[in-house]
Amino acid sequence: MTSPSISSSLTVRLELPGRPTAVSELSGAVERAGGLVTALDITSSSNDRMQVDVTLNARDTDHGDQIVDAMRSVEGVVIGKVSDRTFLVHLGGKLEVKPKVPIRNRDDLSLIYTPGVARVCMAIAEKPSDARNLTIKRNTVAVLTDGSAVLGLGDIGPLAALPVMEGKAALFKRFADIDAFPICLDTYDTEEIIRTAKAIAPVFAGINLEDISAPRCFEIEERLRDELDIPVFHDDQHGTAIVVLAALRNALRVVGKELEGVRIAMSGAGAAGTAILKLLIKAGARDVVVTDINGVIHRERPDVSTGSNPHLQWIAEHTNERGLQGNLKDAIRGADVLIGVSAPNLLTGDDIATMAEGSIVFALANPVPEVDPAAAAQHAAVVATGRSDFANQINNVLVFPGVFRGLLDAHADEVSDEVLLAAAKAVSDTVPREELNAAYIIPSVFHPNLSASVAEAVEAAAKGEPAGS
Amino acid sequence: MTSPSISSSLTVRLELPGRPTAVSELSGAVERAGGLVTALDITSSSNDRMQVDVTLNARDTDHGDQIVDAMRSVEGVVIGKVSDRTFLVHLGGKLEVKPKVPIRNRDDLSLIYTPGVARVCMAIAEKPSDARNLTIKRNTVAVLTDGSAVLGLGDIGPLAALPVMEGKAALFKRFADIDAFPICLDTYDTEEIIRTAKAIAPVFAGINLEDISAPRCFEIEERLRDELDIPVFHDDQHGTAIVVLAALRNALRVVGKELEGVRIAMSGAGAAGTAILKLLIKAGARDVVVTDINGVIHRERPDVSTGSNPHLQWIAEHTNERGLQGNLKDAIRGADVLIGVSAPNLLTGDDIATMAEGSIVFALANPVPEVDPAAAAQHAAVVATGRSDFANQINNVLVFPGVFRGLLDAHADEVSDEVLLAAAKAVSDTVPREELNAAYIIPSVFHPNLSASVAEAVEAAAKGEPAGS
Repeated sequence: MTSPSISSSLTVRLELPGRPTAVSELSGAVERAGGLVTALDITSSSNDRMQVDVTLNARDTDHGDQIVDAMRSVEGVVIGKVSDRTFLVHLGGKLEVKPKVPIRNRDDLSLIYTPGVARVCMAIAEKPSDARNLTIKRNTVAVLTDGSAVLGLGDIGPLAALPVMEGKAALFKRFADIDAFPICLDTYDTEEIIRTAKAIAPVFAGINLEDISAPRCFEIEERLRDELDIPVFHDDQHGTAIVVLAALRNALRVVGKELEGVRIAMSGAGAAGTAILKLLIKAGARDVVVTDINGVIHRERPDVSTGSNPHLQWIAEHTNERGLQGNLKDAIRGADVLIGVSAPNLLTGDDIATMAEGSIVFALANPVPEVDPAAAAQHAAVVATGRSDFANQINNVLVFPGVFRGLLDAHADEVSDEVLLAAAKAVSDTVPREELNAAYIIPSVFHPNLSASVAEAVEAAAKGEPAGS
Repeated sequence: MTSPSISSSLTVRLELPGRPTAVSELSGAVERAGGLVTALDITSSSNDRMQVDVTLNARDTDHGDQIVDAMRSVEGVVIGKVSDRTFLVHLGGKLEVKPKVPIRNRDDLSLIYTPGVARVCMAIAEKPSDARNLTIKRNTVAVLTDGSAVLGLGDIGPLAALPVMEGKAALFKRFADIDAFPICLDTYDTEEIIRTAKAIAPVFAGINLEDISAPRCFEIEERLRDELDIPVFHDDQHGTAIVVLAALRNALRVVGKELEGVRIAMSGAGAAGTAILKLLIKAGARDVVVTDINGVIHRERPDVSTGSNPHLQWIAEHTNERGLQGNLKDAIRGADVLIGVSAPNLLTGDDIATMAEGSIVFALANPVPEVDPAAAAQHAAVVATGRSDFANQINNVLVFPGVFRGLLDAHADEVSDEVLLAAAKAVSDTVPREELNAAYIIPSVFHPNLSASVAEAVEAAAKGEPAGS
């Protein structure tokens, strides 16, 4: 059962009778219903009545309703307006587009619009690369989705995906001062998505693909990388891969092992899993066994040997040198590292106990991990999840703002493997060796140097410069 | 010859010798070269030298260079950095995309991004119309172009068009608090433009088509109006038509004539001309003669009678009841109104003298009007142009912010003729009868009530409500 959280937070305006125990009766009712009171503001009071705003965290919407019912049952309480804080903060959307220049009078108009703007247009027509100096292209990224694989929600379509893309754009500005704009496409057709991305590309210096389902995301990314002269980055693949590699480097330091020497078991061969695998191999991993819903991927497996699925085939050819067969439990037996990007509750603590001494478990299925992190921690040396309510949250927000900042600053036209590796190194190096421990392998999203360090490393790598310290 | 203007304004950093006449010698040199000094800031001084920033207006880039050369020839002057203010204000682009919500800590992240955002997504998936409340769709407009007919510059392409689209988006925010984003398409293909606009539509509550060349703009607008459930407005057509009708209503009041009774000659049958014509007819105009590069449009004209050009044919069928033949000069003889949206210097003051008593001349070709406005004013009662350096500037900025504000507030799914007519009435009514005169038929862009009045009238018309006062 999840804990009450701010993401399901209510503010309940109510009237209480003036009796001395009324507030404690009310708090008691909330607590017995499983809610958590986080604020209690008396907004007006008379001799026999008080008006109070109670802010509380619930587990989810239904639980919020139950808590309000529980409050209603306290004698003399009259419930007024109930506001859901998550919905309140979303009213009218989370972004605005603002002029950076003042428009106070006719002179300002003449500078930023006609007739002055015509000279700027002509300068760009004569030298298109000047658009990087004289327009928003310099600092603008598209967050592009078709809404087919949004968070853990699946195919909810472009309109329902918009709040996520707005949030992502907001994070771009907050963490890397990048102007990002959501593009939510009303089509699932691969060719149409590619065509549209290419058609709108002039305004943007980069494209962040987001929440597009596999296998279409592979072809869309590959084709756009080939056919556009701006960097295209599928965050679900490469953002995840970077942050996993960064966390793994630090986790291996904690347990005193080397990437080249460890046995790695992976659960999940989708977009994220495939990208993680490729980056791990690039970084030096040699012994990886990947499992999917049909068990361990090996060359003799029927759905692999037919060659009908090129991704599975690639995995079979580049992993599992020992020719292991079986299921996920077979794969983790004796493994040093488990990386799960798959499904909830596939393993128990007892399964983790079969791993090697000093094992590392990244159970990243969200919101419910592959194994209960508390149970895993009984046996593993380092445990990480995608959740914010456990230590070691593996979160793409650590990565994508800095990566794009670096790409834009380098005027990069592509995203190379060197960029991905440099970003991972920068993220892990943000945690100094002396601060590193099993519960702190990855910096906080709010770490003050994180985004700038990633940007610097990415810019250098994109320019082909040698990496820093 | 144009006058020096802020749109070609330089700031010249220079060193002057300390002699008493140095500053006046310098100003004299600028003035003799035809420039206009607008500011003179001494940034540092010693006994024998001064560092001065001279800001001045030139006519254009070449003229600016000539003025700087003239300054250089003043004895003892050393010219330093020369900055072009128009380019300075464009550095890095004119827009930014900002979060409207704070992102200070993990709690904020949980509300605006995962996990909180998931509940908002699900709410929209269940009820798509909620996107109007919970996302930026509520207040966001696309400014969409292919860069094929930008200002008077012609086909300069999507990248070079971006400064204009940014400027337009900035004006949307400044005058109507609308979040507009530029979409500059890397294609001239009609079907591709239509397909792309439809693909990106989910994020937007309206589309402002901009600077797309005729005749493609007609089909693109028509098809998008049919196939999208958000309003589509081609500003070059309908924005222009609205502001022309608004100005004409007030000009007719000044000369004491009625729209239904006047003879109108039009020069230009392109996108703007056609839209103006249609709106004039909707508003009650009965006697209109339209000319294009081949002269007066009538049913017997060879390029009309073949029926190969449906737009010309439509014009021939809906205008010129008297069956006039000839050229523009024939068309204006005895006419009460001339509306030019065509080409520079087609007419002289003597031609205007052949118009009826109390004639009205709108010479809107930009930057050089169909007739010199000073010459026209010798004979016409009211003269208007598209230029900011004469009285009565007919400018779309008067219209499009308020029109879209009203459409968004009405949650409109189309732009009806009633909306266009209501907007024109609102613009003209912004000039009270007692303030109206031949040099003030149209309000300033900075008129404090303008945008709100237009928005209110448009919202009522879009909802099918009766117009206000």
